[in-house]
Amino acid sequence: MFRTIIRVTSKCEGDIINITPEIKKAVRDSNVQEGIVHLFVQHSTAALTTIEFEPGVLTDLKRALSVLAPDDADYAHHIRWNDGNGRSHVKAALVGPSITVPLANGDLLCGTWQQIVLLELDVNAGRERTIICTVIGN
Amino acid sequence: MFRTIIRVTSKCEGDIINITPEIKKAVRDSNVQEGIVHLFVQHSTAALTTIEFEPGVLTDLKRALSVLAPDDADYAHHIRWNDGNGRSHVKAALVGPSITVPLANGDLLCGTWQQIVLLELDVNAGRERTIICTVIGN
Amino acid sequence: MFRTIIRVTSKCEGDIINITPEIKKAVRDSNVQEGIVHLFVQHSTAALTTIEFEPGVLTDLKRALSVLAPDDADYAHHIRWNDGNGRSHVKAALVGPSITVPLANGDLLCGTWQQIVLLELDVNAGRERTIICTVIGN
Repeated sequence: MFRTIIRVTSKCEGDIINITPEIKKAVRDSNVQEGIVHLFVQHSTAALTTIEFEPGVLTDLKRALSVLAPDDADYAHHIRWNDGNGRSHVKAALVGPSITVPLANGDLLCGTWQQIVLLELDVNAGRERTIICTVIGN
Repeated sequence: MFRTIIRVTSKCEGDIINITPEIKKAVRDSNVQEGIVHLFVQHSTAALTTIEFEPGVLTDLKRALSVLAPDDADYAHHIRWNDGNGRSHVKAALVGPSITVPLANGDLLCGTWQQIVLLELDVNAGRERTIICTVIGN
Repeated sequence: MFRTIIRVTSKCEGDIINITPEIKKAVRDSNVQEGIVHLFVQHSTAALTTIEFEPGVLTDLKRALSVLAPDDADYAHHIRWNDGNGRSHVKAALVGPSITVPLANGDLLCGTWQQIVLLELDVNAGRERTIICTVIGN
């Protein structure tokens, strides 16, 4: 069992950051060859998933999330706190904060086009986001 | 490896129950200091996720789920079984039944505002829901 | 720790395949009695979740996914690559590629109606899909 922290800084709401290289490095640092790596983003307005890291698809994903939580809806969270990020919380809860990926020969067993990404969903840009990375195996 | 069962009783469709205290207790009972805790809800009309446990956000999340599976849509499941919970199954499958959270010093490594919640999605209220809690580490 | 590969071939876009029997077999082959099984689909246009494997519900789930990513929307991915599967990527990223299920007495601790399924989301039919199955425990 090996644990490390990955930190990334997002630029704006909707920013999608490819964290696959940082995860690969963490797995190498762990010296684990066979097992799993678990990732967990420690924030309620960010999320983790996998996707082909191609600009068109990323745009399409953002539009789909806006169907669920439109920019111009009336958010109860906003009415209460006036912080404008009701949509961010909703999207993050639906996508989820964690993902687990299998490992073999000290590397991720992802598909060819499958990248692990952090979704910055908050309306407040330029935030540092913390991802807890736990490698389990031998 | 330590396993225990968490049981909660929901009040109504759309009930969102903060199970973070029960999970923290399970982790303490396990005596695991460093590792992960995996949670799995054993039902097809309930789901697990993380969210800021603030009433406004919870309302907003419920509305977003209703975009995906509106109350008044024609559900093929309902036409077949007449049990009225087609929307419950759909929401549960999209949010998902499981979540994994990292541990350090015998506690959850969640963010400050990040609570682990059970979503009661069934139209039949007052159900006991079973969550299998597995703690892995040392 | 035991790892195996499950391969299934889908028939068409929207195909939902019950992979519970294959996972149960993998768990038996592992000889693990108590622990967890992690599943990861190695593709960016397929996903894993749990659902009651009843034809009506499966139809309802497909319709809900089409709310998020309608067939007739203009996809930036399509404009760039002309491969017509923008909606497939979006749905897959939102449902997610992985799921973890607890084990006891060498069997899955799922609910009675809770099956583990692969969602074929690509517009190109008849594809072989690879799921990495990792069993952890003792």
